[in-house]
Amino acid sequence: MTETITPVASKDAKFPTSHQAPDSDVFELPKPLQPPTTSGRRRTAAEESRAIVAQRTVATLATLSDDGTPWASMVVYGSLPDGSPVISVSTLSEHGRNLHSDYRASLSIIADEGPAGDPLDRGRLTLAGTFIEPTDKQLLKVAEQAYIEKVPAGRIFTGFDDFTTYLLKIDRIRWVGGYGRMETVALADFQAAEVDPVVHNAPGAVRHLNEDHSDALLLMAQNLAGYTDATAAKCQRIDRYGLDMQINTPRGIGYSRVAFPHPAKHSGDLRSASVELVGLARES
Amino acid sequence: MTETITPVASKDAKFPTSHQAPDSDVFELPKPLQPPTTSGRRRTAAEESRAIVAQRTVATLATLSDDGTPWASMVVYGSLPDGSPVISVSTLSEHGRNLHSDYRASLSIIADEGPAGDPLDRGRLTLAGTFIEPTDKQLLKVAEQAYIEKVPAGRIFTGFDDFTTYLLKIDRIRWVGGYGRMETVALADFQAAEVDPVVHNAPGAVRHLNEDHSDALLLMAQNLAGYTDATAAKCQRIDRYGLDMQINTPRGIGYSRVAFPHPAKHSGDLRSASVELVGLARES
Repeated sequence: MTETITPVASKDAKFPTSHQAPDSDVFELPKPLQPPTTSGRRRTAAEESRAIVAQRTVATLATLSDDGTPWASMVVYGSLPDGSPVISVSTLSEHGRNLHSDYRASLSIIADEGPAGDPLDRGRLTLAGTFIEPTDKQLLKVAEQAYIEKVPAGRIFTGFDDFTTYLLKIDRIRWVGGYGRMETVALADFQAAEVDPVVHNAPGAVRHLNEDHSDALLLMAQNLAGYTDATAAKCQRIDRYGLDMQINTPRGIGYSRVAFPHPAKHSGDLRSASVELVGLARES
Repeated sequence: MTETITPVASKDAKFPTSHQAPDSDVFELPKPLQPPTTSGRRRTAAEESRAIVAQRTVATLATLSDDGTPWASMVVYGSLPDGSPVISVSTLSEHGRNLHSDYRASLSIIADEGPAGDPLDRGRLTLAGTFIEPTDKQLLKVAEQAYIEKVPAGRIFTGFDDFTTYLLKIDRIRWVGGYGRMETVALADFQAAEVDPVVHNAPGAVRHLNEDHSDALLLMAQNLAGYTDATAAKCQRIDRYGLDMQINTPRGIGYSRVAFPHPAKHSGDLRSASVELVGLARES
């Protein structure tokens, strides 16, 4: 029996509903030899999406140019407490002029998961919708403050007459977590989801685990994830609930999730949660 | 006399042609107190653009969704020797289905300039045009090889029937180098420009200079850039021709360029070029 990567269904009948591989063996991954002993909750697609918005400052904006073609360009953003992105752009820039003519747009944000591995296995998000210019003075002030919190230089240029502060009214949310993990997220779920408190600490924690604690990771793979024949293990990403691992075995490379006995509640909790997990791996 | 950030002209009469700041003092930066002794060539906008394409693997694609709205999503790409990007996408993904219906698209790529500073001061690029499916078998093979060179997993999935390999026929190129540096690049210049040989070494060199050689940077600022009252200096970015510096003075923060006496010709030349520059700063 082999673990398979979940195929993604397309709703459009004219397109295939799963990868059209000439040889289905490419999806076969080694399974654990023993049942995993710590599996547990992982972030929902809505939580993943909110974590990406909260973590990053840089996004790519897609707008429509005068001739109707799509224009991709870098922007920086802030976000309201419900996750709605705020940008401030000048009509000196093409994207600023585009938005001035047509509010329809989307934002793509790529997660920072620590040391760069395969970029196709990284979390990313598209938020599509319509930008609005807040007319309510209170809302405008809140939006500008949310922007300046992430973009300190905005304190100066949001006051320029050529800049407009926009708030994205989200219509559609598409999250991709890497190979085989992707979901369309309902706006209400996105808005209600809690932001992972460790989102800013995660990239450093992944680097630290891989650089200084490869022995502990190997123990987790062997004793908790059930890959008793593991020869090496790497942490791919970490979040409040646990960590994703890539595990080398003589049978090939496997992937597993190891959950913290006590999820992190505060930004500084990753260390103690990881130590507890290592303790569990040593006892097993 | 004060240095001013170059305003960017908009061609569209309905928009302002320069930043509409309530107080023009915000653009005033301290000038050097002595004439700089090493100024020199810097990369052209075409060279900057080619450097960004060569350096990175991750881009954001803007396509048109079924309802005509712009869709931003992460992709990975390779590039032909003339800088034309190659992507390979599945019709299981929204961007793959979008391109299947409408080839018009653009790609946004953000430079890696080392440790993250102000993202608005970072190099980035938009390449807009039309994706084509190479019908010529030789061209398709070259395109697929260029893609796989940057995206090893492409060796597997470019063979799937749901994936299409596309080549971007570029119509428009817009480069932004940071605050006050931006240009539209002619396609012929882009195609003819040489790729900076140090582009992959640059982020590490910036980190190394700032972490381990702040004394040498300060000497460069004082003795070469002419900021004799500099109290600290940071390398913002580095390329084959020299480095950009951010310089603290009691008069405020200034920016300067220091050129290498001998530009780097090979990927490993940054070290010797920097050592030569430090020697020059010590002698001055």
